[in-house]
Amino acid sequence: MGAKYTKRSEDYSKWYNELIERADLAEHSDVRGCMVIKPYGYAIWEKIKEVLDAKFKETGHDNAYFPLFIPKSYLSKEAEHVEGFAKECAVVTHYRLKNSDNGEVVVDPEAKLEEELIVRPTSETIIWNSFKSWVQSYRDLPLKINQWANVVRWEMRTRLFLRTAEFLWQEGHTAHATKQEAIEEAEQMLHIYADVLEQYMAIPVVRGLKTASERFAGAEETYCIEALMQDGKALQAGTSHFLGQNFAKAFDVKFADKDGALEHVWATSWGVSTRLIGGLLMTHSDDEGLVLPPKLAPIQVAIVPIYKNEDQLNAISEKVAILKKNLSEKGISVKFDDDDNRRPGWKFAEYEAKGVPVRVAIGPRDLENEKAEVARRDTKEKEIVDWSTVDQYIVDLLDEIQENLLTKASDFTQENTTEVNSYDEFKKVLEEKGGFISAHWDGSEETEQKIKEETKATIRCIPLNRKQEAGNCVYSGNPSEGRVLFAKAY
Amino acid sequence: MGAKYTKRSEDYSKWYNELIERADLAEHSDVRGCMVIKPYGYAIWEKIKEVLDAKFKETGHDNAYFPLFIPKSYLSKEAEHVEGFAKECAVVTHYRLKNSDNGEVVVDPEAKLEEELIVRPTSETIIWNSFKSWVQSYRDLPLKINQWANVVRWEMRTRLFLRTAEFLWQEGHTAHATKQEAIEEAEQMLHIYADVLEQYMAIPVVRGLKTASERFAGAEETYCIEALMQDGKALQAGTSHFLGQNFAKAFDVKFADKDGALEHVWATSWGVSTRLIGGLLMTHSDDEGLVLPPKLAPIQVAIVPIYKNEDQLNAISEKVAILKKNLSEKGISVKFDDDDNRRPGWKFAEYEAKGVPVRVAIGPRDLENEKAEVARRDTKEKEIVDWSTVDQYIVDLLDEIQENLLTKASDFTQENTTEVNSYDEFKKVLEEKGGFISAHWDGSEETEQKIKEETKATIRCIPLNRKQEAGNCVYSGNPSEGRVLFAKAY
Repeated sequence: MGAKYTKRSEDYSKWYNELIERADLAEHSDVRGCMVIKPYGYAIWEKIKEVLDAKFKETGHDNAYFPLFIPKSYLSKEAEHVEGFAKECAVVTHYRLKNSDNGEVVVDPEAKLEEELIVRPTSETIIWNSFKSWVQSYRDLPLKINQWANVVRWEMRTRLFLRTAEFLWQEGHTAHATKQEAIEEAEQMLHIYADVLEQYMAIPVVRGLKTASERFAGAEETYCIEALMQDGKALQAGTSHFLGQNFAKAFDVKFADKDGALEHVWATSWGVSTRLIGGLLMTHSDDEGLVLPPKLAPIQVAIVPIYKNEDQLNAISEKVAILKKNLSEKGISVKFDDDDNRRPGWKFAEYEAKGVPVRVAIGPRDLENEKAEVARRDTKEKEIVDWSTVDQYIVDLLDEIQENLLTKASDFTQENTTEVNSYDEFKKVLEEKGGFISAHWDGSEETEQKIKEETKATIRCIPLNRKQEAGNCVYSGNPSEGRVLFAKAY
Repeated sequence: MGAKYTKRSEDYSKWYNELIERADLAEHSDVRGCMVIKPYGYAIWEKIKEVLDAKFKETGHDNAYFPLFIPKSYLSKEAEHVEGFAKECAVVTHYRLKNSDNGEVVVDPEAKLEEELIVRPTSETIIWNSFKSWVQSYRDLPLKINQWANVVRWEMRTRLFLRTAEFLWQEGHTAHATKQEAIEEAEQMLHIYADVLEQYMAIPVVRGLKTASERFAGAEETYCIEALMQDGKALQAGTSHFLGQNFAKAFDVKFADKDGALEHVWATSWGVSTRLIGGLLMTHSDDEGLVLPPKLAPIQVAIVPIYKNEDQLNAISEKVAILKKNLSEKGISVKFDDDDNRRPGWKFAEYEAKGVPVRVAIGPRDLENEKAEVARRDTKEKEIVDWSTVDQYIVDLLDEIQENLLTKASDFTQENTTEVNSYDEFKKVLEEKGGFISAHWDGSEETEQKIKEETKATIRCIPLNRKQEAGNCVYSGNPSEGRVLFAKAY
C-alpha cells in the first residue's frame, strides 16, 4: 500500500519486472540467467500445463521422458541443428568433486568424461536416437510423443519468463509414414496452441510460417503463433516444426511399408514454454498489477470480510461458507481471506496485484441488506449484488471477464496492425506506433536482413490466412506475392 | 508369444529386466546411467504423481520450481551435506561449444565458467538460499514448498527405475517456527507416503527411523518407509528428514518471532522418486509379466473381441461401446482392442505382460448367450459373467484385486519377517530365507558396520511402532532397548 510503482506508460520494461515482484510470481536466482518460479507463478504454469496436456492426449499423444544429457556427438549429427544450438549450451565435463589439499571443494580432474555431455537445449537428437529402435514397420507409426521437461540455453541477456537460461516447456516429437501426415500434424499442433492461447489465455495470435532465416535449426518449415504485447512488440508464443526427413536421415530411422520397402520417416516437433506466462502478463496486466483470465487464475474469487468485531466476522463467515461451497461445486476456486493481521484495503491491493478476476467484499451493512459488493479486476467496476443471486452473478461475471479480455486484446491487436505501402511509411509506423506492420516483401533473405539491420524489425511470420495479393516489396520494389507481418519482437 | 522369459525363481534380476522390456516401460539410453521412460512407464508415474500431488496440496503445500544448477560453493555450506553429495555429481564447467579447425565440435575453452555449476543431486542448498529472502517474520511461516523435478547422481552401477544417474522425483522443503512443528511435518509426510504406497500401490511398508549412519547428509533424523520385495530384499521407498536448524544456519535463515526476537527456522525435506515404480514392479509382478494395482493401472480393463468376420466384430463392437461408456462414467479406463492385425492370444499375452488388471473376452457364442469371459490378472482366474451384470462385476472386481494385492504382499512381508535371537540364527535366516530380520542391536555404529561387512545386511530402520523390549544385541551381547529390522537391500 502506498508504494509507488512504475506505470506502463513510463517504463514498460520496469513495469514488467515490478509486476512480477508485486504478484510474487518469480525471481532471479543467484545462478546466472536461471529463475525461481514461486508458488503463484507455478500455479499459473500448472493451469496452462493441464489444459495443454489434456489436448495433447485427446489428439493421441503419449507422454514420455528422455535423458537431460545429450552426448556432444549427437548434436553434430544434424548439420544445421548443431549450428543453431551449440553456441549456447551448458557442458558437463566432469562427474565428481573432491576435497583439495587446502580443504576446498574442487572438481576432480580424474573424473573427466570421455565425451562431454550437453544439457539439452531441445531434445530432437536424443529422442531420434531412441526412435531408431522404436520404429521398424508402418505399424509403429505414427509415433506421437510429448515430453514435459526443463531445458537450458545459455542466454546472455535474460528476463523473467521471457528469456531465461533454464526454462520449463513441453516438446512434442512425432514420426509419420508420409510427408502429408507430418505436415498435418505440425499444423494441427499449431492450431491447438493457438486455440489454447485464445480460449484460455485470452491472447489473440496470428498463425503463420517463419521465413527461412527464422526457421528452427533442422526444420523444413516452422509454423508459429505470434502475439502482440501492449507495448507494440511481438512475442513468438509457440512454434511447430515440420522436420522433413532430416532427423530420420541423421539418426537412420526407417520403416518398412506394407510392401516391405524401407523408407525414412517424416517428423515434426513443437513446443511452448514458461515464456507463455510472460506473454500472459504483457497482454492483460495494467498499472495496478496482474490481470488474469478466469480460466487460468489460481484464485478466481477472493472474498474479503469487513468487520469491527468477532460477532460480525462470525456472521459473515457463516454466510460466506455457503457461497464458497456453491461456487466450489461449480469448479470455481474461492479464497476467503479472514486473516486478521491485514486490513481490507491491503487485501484489495494484493488481490489486484495478483490479478484475481473477481473480488467480493462483505461488511455488516451488506449483511443487514442481504447484499455484497462484487468488483471485477479487468474493468475495476463494482456492483452491489443481491446475496440471493450472487453465486450465479459471479459465474456469469467470470465468463464475461474471460470474453472481455480476449475482445480487448483482439481489438488492440487489430488497431495495432497497420498496412503500409512504402518503406518511409514502414519506418514511420514502426517508430511512432509500433505493432504489426503488414507489408509486401520480395521473399529474399537479403531484403529481410537489411530491414532488420536498419529498423530492428523482423518478419514475425507469413500469415497462414494472408490474401494472395500481388504487390511490390516496400524495400526493394521487387514483385511480392503477398504481405507479411513485421514487428520488433521480444 | 512363445518367447522364453526368465522366471523369478531362476534369476530374479534378469526377470526384472525382462519384465520392464516386455511391458515396454523403460530402456537404457546411450547416456551412461540415464534411462528413457517410455509411454507406458510414464503413464504409471503420472498416476503416482497425481495421487501424491493432491495429498501434498490437501496438506497445504505449494509447488514451485528452483534452478537445475547449484553453484559449487553452495554445496559446501552445509558440511555434512557436501560430504554426502559431492562424490557423485555432474559438473558443468563450460557454456559453449565451437567448431574446431578440423571441423569437429569441441568445447570452447574461452567459455569456462568462473564457478562450476553442479546439476542438482537434491535441492536443499539452492532452495534454502531462496528461503533466506522469503522468510522474515513468523507470519511467513510455515513455508511449505514442493518441487517436481529431475535430479542427477552419478551412480556407477545402475538399474532401470531402482538406481539411475538421472531420475524424476518430488522434493518437499519446509520451514517452521518451532522444532516440534518441523518434526510433526516430517512425520506427517512419512505417513502420507506410507498411505499412498499401501492404499494405491498396494505395497505394505514398515515406517521407521534410520540409524545415524544411514541418515540423509545434513539431517538430524531421517524417517523412512521400507518395503520387502519378492526376492526377500528390502527397498527404501521414501524418506522424510527432520533437518533441525542445519540448513537455516548454513544459509542464515532467521525469522522474527512475535516479540521481535530473531531465531533460526526449523526445517524438513522429503522425497520419493521414479524408484517407486521399481518397487511396484518387484512387489506384485509374476512370471507372466506385470501385475498392476487397479488404482495405478493406465488401462484398467482391456476388452478383446473374438470374431471370424466383420459382422461378428460389428455386433461385438456395438455391445462393447455401451459397456465402455458405462465403465468410463465410473472413472474406469477401458481399452477395446479391435486391432485386426493381431490374434486374440497375442493380445491376451500382451495385456498380461502389461499387468492390465481385468481382461474381458467376448466372442460370437458369448454374444448369443449374453455372456462375457472376465479374467483377473492377479490370480489369473476366469469367470463367465452375465452381460447384464458385467459392469458392476468389473467395478467390484477391481476393488477386490486392489485389496487382494495388498493382502498378498502384506502376508508375504509378515511371513518374511523373522525374529532372531542369536547371530548364528541371524546369519542362517539371512542366507536361507532372507527378508526382514528383527533383532536386538546395541545401538553402536561399530556393531552396525561389522554386521554389514560380515553379512551385507544393513539396518533398514528402527520401526516407529516397535515394542520397548529390553534384550541383548545379537552381535555384541550388549544391552539393547528394542529390536531393529535388518535386511539386504536394493
